[in-house]
Amino acid sequence: MAQKETLARYQEWIKKCSAYRMALSVLTIDKMTLAPQGGAAFRDERMAILSGELFSIRTDPEIFEIIKNLKDDPDADGDTRRSAQLYYKELENERVIPKDEYVAFSLLVDQGYNDWLKAKKESDYSLFEPTLKKLIEESKKIYGYRSSKAPIYDQMLDDYEPGTSIEFYDKFFDKVKERLIPLIQKVVKAKQVDTSFLYQTYPVDKQKAFMDKLLTYLHFDSSWGYQNETEHPFTDWICENDCRVTTKYLPDNVASAMLSTIHEVGHATYEHDIDPKYDGMILSDGVSCAMHESQSRLCENYLGRTKAFWTSLYPQLQEEFPGQLGSVSIDAFVDALNAAVPSLVRTEADELTYPLHILIRYEIEKGLFNGSLSTEGLNKTWNELYKKYLGVDVPNDREGILQDVHWSDASFGYFPTYALGSAYAAQFVHTMRKDIDVDKLLAQGHYDQVMGWLKEHVHQYGCRLTPQEVMTKATGEPFDPDYYLDYLEDKYTRLYHL
Amino acid sequence: MAQKETLARYQEWIKKCSAYRMALSVLTIDKMTLAPQGGAAFRDERMAILSGELFSIRTDPEIFEIIKNLKDDPDADGDTRRSAQLYYKELENERVIPKDEYVAFSLLVDQGYNDWLKAKKESDYSLFEPTLKKLIEESKKIYGYRSSKAPIYDQMLDDYEPGTSIEFYDKFFDKVKERLIPLIQKVVKAKQVDTSFLYQTYPVDKQKAFMDKLLTYLHFDSSWGYQNETEHPFTDWICENDCRVTTKYLPDNVASAMLSTIHEVGHATYEHDIDPKYDGMILSDGVSCAMHESQSRLCENYLGRTKAFWTSLYPQLQEEFPGQLGSVSIDAFVDALNAAVPSLVRTEADELTYPLHILIRYEIEKGLFNGSLSTEGLNKTWNELYKKYLGVDVPNDREGILQDVHWSDASFGYFPTYALGSAYAAQFVHTMRKDIDVDKLLAQGHYDQVMGWLKEHVHQYGCRLTPQEVMTKATGEPFDPDYYLDYLEDKYTRLYHL
Repeated sequence: MAQKETLARYQEWIKKCSAYRMALSVLTIDKMTLAPQGGAAFRDERMAILSGELFSIRTDPEIFEIIKNLKDDPDADGDTRRSAQLYYKELENERVIPKDEYVAFSLLVDQGYNDWLKAKKESDYSLFEPTLKKLIEESKKIYGYRSSKAPIYDQMLDDYEPGTSIEFYDKFFDKVKERLIPLIQKVVKAKQVDTSFLYQTYPVDKQKAFMDKLLTYLHFDSSWGYQNETEHPFTDWICENDCRVTTKYLPDNVASAMLSTIHEVGHATYEHDIDPKYDGMILSDGVSCAMHESQSRLCENYLGRTKAFWTSLYPQLQEEFPGQLGSVSIDAFVDALNAAVPSLVRTEADELTYPLHILIRYEIEKGLFNGSLSTEGLNKTWNELYKKYLGVDVPNDREGILQDVHWSDASFGYFPTYALGSAYAAQFVHTMRKDIDVDKLLAQGHYDQVMGWLKEHVHQYGCRLTPQEVMTKATGEPFDPDYYLDYLEDKYTRLYHL
Repeated sequence: MAQKETLARYQEWIKKCSAYRMALSVLTIDKMTLAPQGGAAFRDERMAILSGELFSIRTDPEIFEIIKNLKDDPDADGDTRRSAQLYYKELENERVIPKDEYVAFSLLVDQGYNDWLKAKKESDYSLFEPTLKKLIEESKKIYGYRSSKAPIYDQMLDDYEPGTSIEFYDKFFDKVKERLIPLIQKVVKAKQVDTSFLYQTYPVDKQKAFMDKLLTYLHFDSSWGYQNETEHPFTDWICENDCRVTTKYLPDNVASAMLSTIHEVGHATYEHDIDPKYDGMILSDGVSCAMHESQSRLCENYLGRTKAFWTSLYPQLQEEFPGQLGSVSIDAFVDALNAAVPSLVRTEADELTYPLHILIRYEIEKGLFNGSLSTEGLNKTWNELYKKYLGVDVPNDREGILQDVHWSDASFGYFPTYALGSAYAAQFVHTMRKDIDVDKLLAQGHYDQVMGWLKEHVHQYGCRLTPQEVMTKATGEPFDPDYYLDYLEDKYTRLYHL
C-alpha cells in the first residue's frame, strides 16, 4: 500500500474508533447519572456488544501491521509516529485477548458497578465480595495473555502511569510515610482549626444557586461543558468542546460539592485545552492519570483552598448562606477548608491526610495481586489499615471499603496516581508562581489566566509528549517529590503553629 | 444451514442491531437535552459513522436471505415469522441505498437539527431553507432507489403508518374539514371560555414541584423512566424498563408542561407495557406512529382534560399556586383546559383545532413532493394556510414554519399520523368506557387501572399485530373516523352551549 493510502486507512480507523469510544462514553455518563435503574441489565448487555465491536475494530491485524510500521517510520510526521507508538503499546496487549473473553470481561465490569452500588446502598461488603473476587481473577486472566513477564500489578501501574512500577511507588510512599506521618501526629496534637460552621444545614437548592456562580468563576460554560449529579463525582469527555463533570451535594457539608467541582472542572479544563488538531485521536487525551490528577488537584488544593480564590467568591457564598456564614470571616473560612483531621472517606479527606488514604489502597492492591491478601474479610483489613495509618475506627462498609467506585470496574493500579498527581502539582505550582502572580489573578477573578499558564505548559500537548517530558519542559527538571512534601510541611506548620 | 443455527444467527443479529440502536437513541436523547452545543459537529460526524456501521450490519446480504426465508417459513413460530416480515419490509427498501449516501444522509439529518435550532432561535426561515431544500432533495434520491413505483409521498405515508396513502388521508381530511370547519366557526362566534388564569406568571420551580406529583399520579417512576427538559418535548425508549420523556416549562402557561407530560408519558407507558419477551426485537416497538399517537393523545385529551383526572390533583395544584388558582373552581379550570381557540402553535393547540394544524402540514408536504410547492417562500405559504384554515395571522417564523422539529430530520409523512392517532383514540375510548368506569378510576387515583385496560387491549402486542388487527381486536370493528368527529361535536357543542 502506498504511504498516502496507508495514512488515509489509519486516519479512517482512528475516526471509527473514536465514534465507538464516544458512544460508550455517553452511555457510561448516562448510566451513571440519569438512566432508569430497571434498564441496567438490558443496557449492560448491549454495551458489552459494542465494546466487543470496538475490540474487533481495534485488533484488526491489518491495522496492527500499519501501526507497527508507522511507529518508527522516518517519513511519517512526529504526531503520526507518536500516536502509532501509543496505539502499538495498547494494542500489543489487547489483541492477544480472545474476543469472547474480552466481551465477557466488559459485561462483568458493567455489572460490577451495579453490584457495588447495591452493596454500598446496603453498606454490606459481603454483597460485593464475590464480584470483586471475580473481577480480580478475570483481570489476572486478561493480563496473563500478555507477553510481559513483569508481575501483573507492575503492569497495571505502568498502564495507568507509564514509567511507574511497584519499585517506584514503594520509594515514593516510603518518603510520604517518613515525612507525613510525624507531621500528621503533630497536627493531631495541636490546637484544632474550627470547621464546625462548614457542617451546618446547607439546603441543596441554595448550594446549587451558588454553584452557578462558582462555575462562572471557573469559566466552565454550556458551550463546552455540562454538570450533572451522580453518586461518585467524575469527569468524562468526548472532544475539545464536550467535557462533562458531575458532582454530589451533601446537605450538611457546604465544602464537598464546591471542592469536588473545582477538582472535576480541573480535569475538564485539561481536556478542553488540548490542541484541537488532536480531537478524536489518541493524542487528544491527557497524557497520564497522574498528570490528569495533578491538574484537578492543582485546581482543588493549590488554587481552590487559597484566600485569593475566595476573595470575590466568599461574599457571594455568604449572601446565599447568611445564617450559616454571615459572621464567619474569610480567613476563618479558608483555614477551615484547609484543616487536617484524619477521617474515613477519601473524597472528603484533607490535603495532608489524603496520600495516606491512597497508601492504604496501594498496599491492599499490592497484596491482592501478590497473593498476600484475599477478598474474603478484606473489609477487616481495610479497617485495620485505617486504624494503623490514620488512627480512625471505620464504623461500616459504606464509609469503609465500599466508598470508592474504582474496584467495581476493575481499575486496579489507578489509585496510586492520585497521590502522585498531587505531588506533580506541587512542582508545577512552584514554577508557575515564579512566572505569574497567581494570587493577584485569582483575587481579581482571572481564573482563566491561571489556566492559561497551565494550557501553555501542560494542557496543550495532550499525549504528544510523555509525562516525564511535560514535567521537564514545564519545570526545567525531572519529577521531585520533595516539592510536594516541602509544600505540605510548610503549609501545615504555619496553619497549626507547629 | 440448519434451522437451529439459522435462528441463532438471526437472534444474534437482532441483538447486535439493538445495541447500535440503543447507542444512537441515547446519543440522540443526550444531544437533545444536555450535550454542550460546541461539540455538536464532532458528535454528529461520529453518529453518522455509527449509523453507517448499523446500516452495514442491517443490510448484510446473508441476513437478508435468512429473513426472506423465515418470513414465510411454516416451521417458524408466529413471533419469528412476524418479526421477519417486518424486517423484510424495512430492509427491502434499505439495502438498495449505497452506504456512502446513507451515511451522508444521516449526517445531513443530524446537521439539520442544528440548523433548525439556530434558525428557530433567530426566528429566520431563510437560515433553514437551504437545509430543508437539501433534505427534500436527498429524501427523494433515497426513495428513488426503491423498486416501488408509487409516488414518493405515498411511500412515506405508508412507512409511518402501514396501509395508508394519499388517497386514504385525502378522504380522512375531507371528512375532518367537512365536519370540523363549520363547528370551529360556531365555537369562534360563541361566548368564550375564560382561560386567562392559565396564562399568569407560574414560576418554573413551582411547576417542577407539582410535576413530581403529576408523575406519581401517572405511575411514571425512576425504576423505568426519566424526565428531562428540551426545546421540543419527545419520548424515546431503550427497553421495557428504560423509557425517557422530556418536557418544556413555560413561565407564563401552567397547562403546557403538564399536558405535554401526560402526552409523552402516554407514549412511554405504551412502550413500557409491551410484552417484555419482545425486548430488543422489532416486535417491541409500538406498532405504528398513529397507534403510538393514539395512546399519547388518549392520555392527554381523553383522560388528562377531564374533571375526573383533576379531582385529586387539582387541589394539589392550587396548593402550589394559591395566588393564581386559589379562587378558580375545578369546573372553571377543566373548562379552560378544553377551550378551543384557533392559534399558532401546534403543540399548544386545543383538541378541536389541532387536526387543522396537521391538515396544513399535510397539504404542504403533499405539495413539496408532487412539485406544486417549493421550499422558497414556504413560510409565506405556511402563513396563508394558517389564515385560510384557522383565521390566524402568523407574526414570525419561530411561531410559524419553524415551530416543529420534524422536517429538520426529514420526517416527512409523519405529521398526518398525529391527526389519525387522535381519531384512533376516540374509538378506543368508546369501547373502554363500556368495559370500565374510567371517571371513577381516575377520580380515585387509579390511573394505572385505566392503563391496565390499554395494556391488555393495545400495548402488550407491540408490533405482533398490525394496527388494523389491534383496532379490530380491541373495539370489535375496523377504524371509523366518525367516533372521533362525533366525540368532538358532542363535546364542543356542550362546552360552548351551541
